[in-house]
Amino acid sequence: MKFCSECAHPVELAVPAGDNRPRYVCASCATIHYQNPKMVLGTLPVWESDGELKILLCKRAIEPRRGYWTLPAGFMENNETTAEAAIRETVEEAGANIVLGPLFSLLNVARVHQVHMFYLATLRDLDFAPGEESLDVQMFSEAQIPWDDLAFPTTRTTLELFLADHRRVREGGEYGFHTLDINRPMRSDL
Amino acid sequence: MKFCSECAHPVELAVPAGDNRPRYVCASCATIHYQNPKMVLGTLPVWESDGELKILLCKRAIEPRRGYWTLPAGFMENNETTAEAAIRETVEEAGANIVLGPLFSLLNVARVHQVHMFYLATLRDLDFAPGEESLDVQMFSEAQIPWDDLAFPTTRTTLELFLADHRRVREGGEYGFHTLDINRPMRSDL
Ligand SMILES: [Zn+2]
Ligand SMILES: [Zn+2]
Repeated sequence: MKFCSECAHPVELAVPAGDNRPRYVCASCATIHYQNPKMVLGTLPVWESDGELKILLCKRAIEPRRGYWTLPAGFMENNETTAEAAIRETVEEAGANIVLGPLFSLLNVARVHQVHMFYLATLRDLDFAPGEESLDVQMFSEAQIPWDDLAFPTTRTTLELFLADHRRVREGGEYGFHTLDINRPMRSDL
Repeated sequence: MKFCSECAHPVELAVPAGDNRPRYVCASCATIHYQNPKMVLGTLPVWESDGELKILLCKRAIEPRRGYWTLPAGFMENNETTAEAAIRETVEEAGANIVLGPLFSLLNVARVHQVHMFYLATLRDLDFAPGEESLDVQMFSEAQIPWDDLAFPTTRTTLELFLADHRRVREGGEYGFHTLDINRPMRSDL
């Protein structure tokens, strides 16, 4: 940020009165330009038939991490809820028809000012197709998950938590809600 | 937003290529200025002695809703986690020493582009004191909660969910994690 978005005057970093952090402030119109973390919302869409579980993943068509696999997810927009954002991203990236389940994971990625959240979801059918931001959409059994080619650690962590819970659910348990901090770089291979 | 924060050129609302929503875009430097929802993080700090439960509330010293009671909460900052934000707000507004518990509620307030989250918390001691943004900090038993003078519906909803869960916990149950959409105006009296 270099200029005030309200009056076009150059902004400067300063600690406003009553505050304790430097902010971009405008000396001309006195606007304080706060910057806050963003939410990334997605789903973990599954299909179970004959006792076999498969998970939907998207191959990214855009940077960062083009060509790597991810759960469908993206930035939450104004005027929508977390659930609406998760469904929208799943439609946009995978063309998938889902029934949304409960919120499953909330992952803090403080170093990039993001909070990632994933809902459980079940596919209504297998009529999915890659959207503009995906090169491919595929279903993976647990043994087929491309662990070495996942785009982001939040995808990896959510898949790991899900598979562990899924084993417990088969033994009569329930899916949990999981909060975790991701301290690794956002590239999952680093 | 009237001017580009990168080059000071006037921005215009337009749907960028490959997008489906109007954004503030700069015709001069091509920057797209996305606007995203913000997170509000807080706690529900409790003190139990001799079987009596009390809940900490803050009387707001600032607008909106000056003079009304709220759980300690505020906007999450860059470079912190949801848990760190919840603890920081509790210290800033109530001067309270807490042990943070699990995330308890996630409330979508889509009309004001906010997601509010509250963690359970237990007070380490009763040495709290109002910070700059609070006129007063008090402990309330269930019967004393000022329901008609609460600042925001997310405080009201979180208190209601907590008291219902607390009854279940006394009977051997557990606190849940609750997601809800708040469609009422943010002033709890409207
Ligand atoms: Zn200005
Ligand atoms: Zn510009």
